[in-house]
Amino acid sequence: MSTPARPDGRRTHGREVLRRAAVRCMVERGYFGTSIREIAEAAGMTSAALYHHFASKQAILVEIMDRALDESYRMTMEAARFGPDPSAQLRLMVHAWVLFHCLQRDEAMIGASELRSLDDEARRHVVSRRDRQETAFRAVVQAGISDGEFHVTDPLVATRAIITMGTSVATWFDPSGAQSADQIAEQYADLALNMVTGCDGQPRR
Amino acid sequence: MSTPARPDGRRTHGREVLRRAAVRCMVERGYFGTSIREIAEAAGMTSAALYHHFASKQAILVEIMDRALDESYRMTMEAARFGPDPSAQLRLMVHAWVLFHCLQRDEAMIGASELRSLDDEARRHVVSRRDRQETAFRAVVQAGISDGEFHVTDPLVATRAIITMGTSVATWFDPSGAQSADQIAEQYADLALNMVTGCDGQPRR
Repeated sequence: MSTPARPDGRRTHGREVLRRAAVRCMVERGYFGTSIREIAEAAGMTSAALYHHFASKQAILVEIMDRALDESYRMTMEAARFGPDPSAQLRLMVHAWVLFHCLQRDEAMIGASELRSLDDEARRHVVSRRDRQETAFRAVVQAGISDGEFHVTDPLVATRAIITMGTSVATWFDPSGAQSADQIAEQYADLALNMVTGCDGQPRR
Repeated sequence: MSTPARPDGRRTHGREVLRRAAVRCMVERGYFGTSIREIAEAAGMTSAALYHHFASKQAILVEIMDRALDESYRMTMEAARFGPDPSAQLRLMVHAWVLFHCLQRDEAMIGASELRSLDDEARRHVVSRRDRQETAFRAVVQAGISDGEFHVTDPLVATRAIITMGTSVATWFDPSGAQSADQIAEQYADLALNMVTGCDGQPRR
């Protein structure tokens, strides 16, 4: 069976080269400190060639954020499928979430600092994507509460604590450090589960 | 008794007006996206007047970060003094830490995103200040482990999870929201303590 033709292969490749170049520039100098010309140069293109792929610097930023939010969402949702109960689901989701933020540190840094740089429509879109991720985590926390396994004052506050401690791994994880991304992710999964189970007279292990 | 003369009062005031103006500008557009002229204008001064107070934009950024790091350190250390044991100390420190990040959201956002914008010497200084804060949190986590109260795989990883989930409150806390800074801080203190105590057959409450 032949593979389908990919007439847009070169175009897709160009977009990806530009996206990566923009990530490098924006991590160093921020969105406002980065020009279209600098992104094009970092990608080895002319500005005119860049505009063939993206309508604006704003469109590149949206692509960076959108891609990262979609990929991390997909990773956490696929991981959660293998959990038989909320405790296992939360562990698996946190593990995937931390792994993502160890592997895509630059994209995570941009996502954390450049929401301000989006125009209104793009910001609404990105915020709705973040809300989708938060809702997914919160549903598991809520399910654990309903099952009597989790004990937290406010599920939303606990959910945000879990999400943001994972996001922040991007700020300090060192790929050449003593611990692997997987080892960090495992510990975070434990810490997150501890957070929501607490100790109300029902030992967890 | 007369108060001591403050010959530098106006100078101190000018610096503070400029610091606040720079915080507003840099939160909106980042360090590289903000010019000296814009900071001066936002402070209602000329650029020449600005240079009377700060040698450079870099010096203003250092002042913003330095001030925030000193104040949050002081708050957490003063809070910890009232804790009779590591559990109480950790709760009090996390409470103070979260409170600080609810109250100084803009400074926290700049601190989280503009480390890249510091020159080498300033970065070393700011990193040493952060290390001092991390060491203080870690000492309490370590003390709790020594006492047999806390159970974590790696004290440094747990400490970073606690510090960064607190830092991130600056990204979502809403002063006009349903919960006060103090209520959020209380919950974070509980969540952090849960994280490190775990449930190894010794119920905490």
